[in-house]
Amino acid sequence: MTTQDLIPAIPSLHDDALAAALRHRIDRKTKPLGSLGRLEGLMLRLGLILGSEQPRLVDPQLMVFAADHGLAAHGVSAYPSDVTWQMVENFLAGGAAVSVLARQHGLQLSIVDAGVRHVFEPRPGLLIAKIAMGSRDMLDGPAMTMDECATAIAAGKTLLQKRPGNVLLLGEMGIGNTSSAALLLSRLGGHPLAACVGRGTGLDDAQLRHKLEVLTRALDRHPRATEPLAALAALGGLEIAMMVGAVLQAAQERRVIVVDGFITGAAVLVASALQPAVLERCVFAHRSNEQGHRLMLDTLQAEPLLDLGLRLGEGSGAALAWPLLASACRLLGEMASFDAAGVSDRA
Amino acid sequence: MTTQDLIPAIPSLHDDALAAALRHRIDRKTKPLGSLGRLEGLMLRLGLILGSEQPRLVDPQLMVFAADHGLAAHGVSAYPSDVTWQMVENFLAGGAAVSVLARQHGLQLSIVDAGVRHVFEPRPGLLIAKIAMGSRDMLDGPAMTMDECATAIAAGKTLLQKRPGNVLLLGEMGIGNTSSAALLLSRLGGHPLAACVGRGTGLDDAQLRHKLEVLTRALDRHPRATEPLAALAALGGLEIAMMVGAVLQAAQERRVIVVDGFITGAAVLVASALQPAVLERCVFAHRSNEQGHRLMLDTLQAEPLLDLGLRLGEGSGAALAWPLLASACRLLGEMASFDAAGVSDRA
Repeated sequence: MTTQDLIPAIPSLHDDALAAALRHRIDRKTKPLGSLGRLEGLMLRLGLILGSEQPRLVDPQLMVFAADHGLAAHGVSAYPSDVTWQMVENFLAGGAAVSVLARQHGLQLSIVDAGVRHVFEPRPGLLIAKIAMGSRDMLDGPAMTMDECATAIAAGKTLLQKRPGNVLLLGEMGIGNTSSAALLLSRLGGHPLAACVGRGTGLDDAQLRHKLEVLTRALDRHPRATEPLAALAALGGLEIAMMVGAVLQAAQERRVIVVDGFITGAAVLVASALQPAVLERCVFAHRSNEQGHRLMLDTLQAEPLLDLGLRLGEGSGAALAWPLLASACRLLGEMASFDAAGVSDRA
Repeated sequence: MTTQDLIPAIPSLHDDALAAALRHRIDRKTKPLGSLGRLEGLMLRLGLILGSEQPRLVDPQLMVFAADHGLAAHGVSAYPSDVTWQMVENFLAGGAAVSVLARQHGLQLSIVDAGVRHVFEPRPGLLIAKIAMGSRDMLDGPAMTMDECATAIAAGKTLLQKRPGNVLLLGEMGIGNTSSAALLLSRLGGHPLAACVGRGTGLDDAQLRHKLEVLTRALDRHPRATEPLAALAALGGLEIAMMVGAVLQAAQERRVIVVDGFITGAAVLVASALQPAVLERCVFAHRSNEQGHRLMLDTLQAEPLLDLGLRLGEGSGAALAWPLLASACRLLGEMASFDAAGVSDRA
């Protein structure tokens, strides 16, 4: 498979006529001009992504990509690697935060085993697409071979292609994956590593210093992995690579992509480094409390909807932001215009 | 009616044992400690208000209080006063933003005619509690007589008492009412008027200067109206006074009070000046774009959930924040604990 086969071309959604029609429709609603604030920009974005003056969100898919990380053996997380598979079981049993939120909002939840170090019983809601029993130790070599990385991306594309609907909400689970996200942000965003590395699930000061030390070695180990795919293979993880594929496929199909927090942001960072117009399809759900996420959002020139100090991952922030997207579409579709409602416009 | 009859005593909800039980329950959920950020504080608050380790939100009532303002004759709004009744019709016809959002979230929407300068046909969803055909011109005398003000507060209490459920979401409509809110914030909060006055529905620079000039005269006209009820009568409006009554009643009944933006905030400011423990029952939905709202929130020591640049009123921000309250309760009720899910806690 060549890179061209793997990475689809993503054209810009730029459409002056549609944008003007949407703007006009928004401005004639019975409300002061601009008074719905950020929701008005959201209406515009959803309309442009879905190519409609009256966008409708259909069958939203919340996909949680899970994998283990070889680097976790070096003590970069507050939790043991077994928590990855245990949390997958918890997602499937309905007891995790993202399970609860998906139920609340009627989001179709799928858990993708991209590379968890555990053999799961097949069951509904679990998509087994395991590339390996976790990524490799990136202090020894790349986290993934280029072949594993490409296979993960292709699998992500295929998985997404098979899902119905026009919205992808991204989630992830993987003990150690804030390390990969921090490394990708540093390498692809050109930021000092210290600004990208945070406490993840809850490291104390000494553990954080240790994490930074390990990640510094990881970055130094792969000085030539500067291109997006090379950086992804060297420093990423199987769930991140698979998300890159899902994001590219969703972008190609003009689905709305709802980006959760720091790790899903890293997948979007890679995807947008490959195809910048991916970002036009993204809605950023929230600003997380993880150190580095603000920098990630700035790098992606993203303004998130929520700022609730979350740092859980799983897609929980994407699920929490979901009702705002639904509101934007309903307001655009259902609010009366000044003329239709017989309301006087300003003098 | 004496002031004591009118203003119920609101005790503090302080309860160390319940707070500790809630904190323990939150901390044992399958997530890193504190990783649900602001939602964890929300869980705690909802639990304390409703007096339960597993609070449930029942039959949420979104009440939009509407009235006209004598001061509007002085050109303090970008829209004519007739928009108040026209928007009430729009609310009832289902075409306004708050109508759409209430439908989306299954919120029971009631529109309260507290003093609109219009005679409405009675119909479902409209609660007619008209005190007068709008408030008086506060440049000539108080906006309400003390009797009108007390009658409005009492009506708000009675209206709320008759509504089912344990949540009150506040909304309002009234051309000119950002003026009253700004005046109350200045007088009761002790802030310079210029810091409290904003563009409302969209004044330009010259109109804003004119508004400030008119409001300066209004404030100077009532130098002795410094106590909460006197300030409310002199500078407030019928919908604000009725909201004060509804807020006090809701607080007495330990309902959750979801505060929308600048004008509902002014009602809470008055109610909390009378009974400070009202604030323990409040959840602040959003930070609006109206100049003065940040100062209002600071004065109330409130940290809102959303910050979306809204400035529409109607209760739209309260409705948009509603799913977050529902999420908080569901997460507290439905998430598994580490023990129940068999997930390893941190090392």
